[in-house]
Amino acid sequence: MGQLDLDNPVFVSYVFYSAILALKMLLMGPITGYYRITKKVFANPEDAAKFNAKEVKMNDADVERVRRAHQNDLENIPVFWMVALLFVLTGPSETTARYVFRIYTIARIQHTVMYLRSNGMRGIAFGVALALKFFMVATVIYTFW
Amino acid sequence: MGQLDLDNPVFVSYVFYSAILALKMLLMGPITGYYRITKKVFANPEDAAKFNAKEVKMNDADVERVRRAHQNDLENIPVFWMVALLFVLTGPSETTARYVFRIYTIARIQHTVMYLRSNGMRGIAFGVALALKFFMVATVIYTFW
Amino acid sequence: MGQLDLDNPVFVSYVFYSAILALKMLLMGPITGYYRITKKVFANPEDAAKFNAKEVKMNDADVERVRRAHQNDLENIPVFWMVALLFVLTGPSETTARYVFRIYTIARIQHTVMYLRSNGMRGIAFGVALALKFFMVATVIYTFW
Repeated sequence: MGQLDLDNPVFVSYVFYSAILALKMLLMGPITGYYRITKKVFANPEDAAKFNAKEVKMNDADVERVRRAHQNDLENIPVFWMVALLFVLTGPSETTARYVFRIYTIARIQHTVMYLRSNGMRGIAFGVALALKFFMVATVIYTFW
Repeated sequence: MGQLDLDNPVFVSYVFYSAILALKMLLMGPITGYYRITKKVFANPEDAAKFNAKEVKMNDADVERVRRAHQNDLENIPVFWMVALLFVLTGPSETTARYVFRIYTIARIQHTVMYLRSNGMRGIAFGVALALKFFMVATVIYTFW
Repeated sequence: MGQLDLDNPVFVSYVFYSAILALKMLLMGPITGYYRITKKVFANPEDAAKFNAKEVKMNDADVERVRRAHQNDLENIPVFWMVALLFVLTGPSETTARYVFRIYTIARIQHTVMYLRSNGMRGIAFGVALALKFFMVATVIYTFW
């Protein structure tokens, strides 16, 4: 079975792609902040006052779009971190694991890019990433049943 | 103390119930999608256009209910994954750990079912799950203080 | 390299501060519930009926403020748990790791306190915590590239 140890190349692959996904997620906060400040769209009166915005505004289309993309990350990437860690424990081949993690990471980055560009094909990226999570969780439940 | 190793039956129990909870969470996205498509309720203009909905709509009662149930999962299940992992490290008895993880999992599944059925008793399921997280985190902080 | 083992003092430090952050997050749900019940502000008709509120209400300023603080935790603390775990694997010095984890934890607690008090300086706490996450993820990606 797979071990959570740096001697295990599957675990090292998990570590690397998990870090890339974390970096991607960390950028969503600053992107939201950039839109809020340049468009003067704030959710809190104290923020509006600081940046000389007249009032709080909850429904700016650009800010809400970034927030939905961020929310979609929150709904997906922490689940990936857990499910992929459990998948490492099932002892998959190095090749399988690396491709699953790599394609997942590319799909989620692509999802964000397409979301911010209003590309309606982002559903494909979402679906690929979701299918990989279902594949991993099914492997885990089958292994440890 | 407990080890994060498949030789440790407490860790194996953690792996199994964490996977069940991940599977439960993964279903929330498709359920939301099902309501969005059948009721033609979309948050993005590009999605509305693709499915021939006239406009975006943010306040559909059914879609918002699924989203609140999903949000409640996001507020609870990743915290469980962390807290329960740390709890494994405190070396609990196999019986205690398995019951805590099992009851937690049942309570969270029950919470979702009751939320989607507008059952006002979902607060009991929420409270049981919350109490188990407090119990585990208290054990961890007491052990590692 | 660092091991995920209680013999590793860096990992023990990770466990302790992760538990403190989990406890902090766990309190957000009950705080939201306290505001909902005392102010009779409910998102679900079945909850409003149970507590004799006339109707659901989605825009109460106090409830929404707690929910934004909670949401900010969801956007940050699970990412910390992952990134800090990977950072442990890079084998940082015990002193560095302990300070990073401790300052992060203090910054996030301070963020919540300032958010609930409408203190516009919460951005500093947010920024310190974000910078520490970027530092850790950069270390991880540099190490495992």
